[in-house]
Amino acid sequence: MTIAILGGTGDQGPGLALRWAMAGETVIIGSRAKEKAEKVAAELNAELGSEKIRGLDNPAAAEAADIAVLTVPYSAHLATLEAVKAQLKGKILIDVSVPLDPDNVRRMKMPAIGSATEEAQAFFGDDTKVVAAFQNVAAHHLRDATHAIDCDILICGNDPEARKIVAGLVSKMGMKPVDAGPAEAARVVESLTALLIRLNIKNKVKGAGIRLTGLPG
Amino acid sequence: MTIAILGGTGDQGPGLALRWAMAGETVIIGSRAKEKAEKVAAELNAELGSEKIRGLDNPAAAEAADIAVLTVPYSAHLATLEAVKAQLKGKILIDVSVPLDPDNVRRMKMPAIGSATEEAQAFFGDDTKVVAAFQNVAAHHLRDATHAIDCDILICGNDPEARKIVAGLVSKMGMKPVDAGPAEAARVVESLTALLIRLNIKNKVKGAGIRLTGLPG
Repeated sequence: MTIAILGGTGDQGPGLALRWAMAGETVIIGSRAKEKAEKVAAELNAELGSEKIRGLDNPAAAEAADIAVLTVPYSAHLATLEAVKAQLKGKILIDVSVPLDPDNVRRMKMPAIGSATEEAQAFFGDDTKVVAAFQNVAAHHLRDATHAIDCDILICGNDPEARKIVAGLVSKMGMKPVDAGPAEAARVVESLTALLIRLNIKNKVKGAGIRLTGLPG
Repeated sequence: MTIAILGGTGDQGPGLALRWAMAGETVIIGSRAKEKAEKVAAELNAELGSEKIRGLDNPAAAEAADIAVLTVPYSAHLATLEAVKAQLKGKILIDVSVPLDPDNVRRMKMPAIGSATEEAQAFFGDDTKVVAAFQNVAAHHLRDATHAIDCDILICGNDPEARKIVAGLVSKMGMKPVDAGPAEAARVVESLTALLIRLNIKNKVKGAGIRLTGLPG
């Protein structure tokens, strides 16, 4: 499967790219500037000792992909969706966006519809299936390929089949997916990131995460 | 220490009463109807084989307590606070309330101020220190004294000393407290309950909980 990581030069993208490439997936880093994407892809390839990851601009990356992942800061959420709308028709978009309050990243500033995930799904209508995932996992843990991730990956979105496909991609990276149901569950899943940032700042650490308990399996 | 559990005849109250009594604290069950509180206290005492727990109406329970816990359904939140306002002056109130949407308990219907905890603190002003805790732990796990709780207890409130006292009471019951800072963190802590209820319904279980990872200690 070819996975495009749109806005993949930021915090969360490179770690996801690295781990999927290590799991055997074909990965494209997308960015507004193709050169920036190529630079990050080259760094990751050097680390991997292979040429599995390439860099393209966001629309070209989305076009070439079977499935796309959005890892831009929330301020660029709608503008990036607009730039790749045609290219994502009929595909799944994994939305990692978190609408943090720019004035205080310990709290949320949610869009009126309830969450970034619901906002993205409303933007695409029936053309693209949006699935939320990876908001709660620490970027620097993802980026360190030797680090065993001690954080469950909550997954939500309105299409159960799309959630299953994303859960499979999470498992492939050695992380545990937890199906949280429809897109509106993202109101809590995205908000959890603000709590984890709060705990990171308070405890002077970078890698607070969560595990769900009491569930079957 | 004498702990009053206001609205203590509901879901969350009896388990908290049982576990604090087992840890050696003096516990009072409070209820709107004294007889109902006495009945639950008698049931718990029978289980404990002692007379450590007594029942009173909410204002009398609050009056007799060093520290109070509020475990009423959110619909009774402000009315119960009103009934015990005078009696809680100078004390700590542990607020367990969760503003679930009555039409769908998988989601929240938060008060305009942001959370039940902030609402309670605004109601009391400087007279009473409100600390949020125990929203995420499953009632039927609490109630089963033999069950080792696999759920961290997030604690938040504007007074650091009050949070410390509540953390101590959590530890006494053999659970792990996690200090999440000021009252506004309750926006996420309370919301987590809706996610856990969603996971319970989806997985046909009753005891979903959370653990925080990546924190010191």
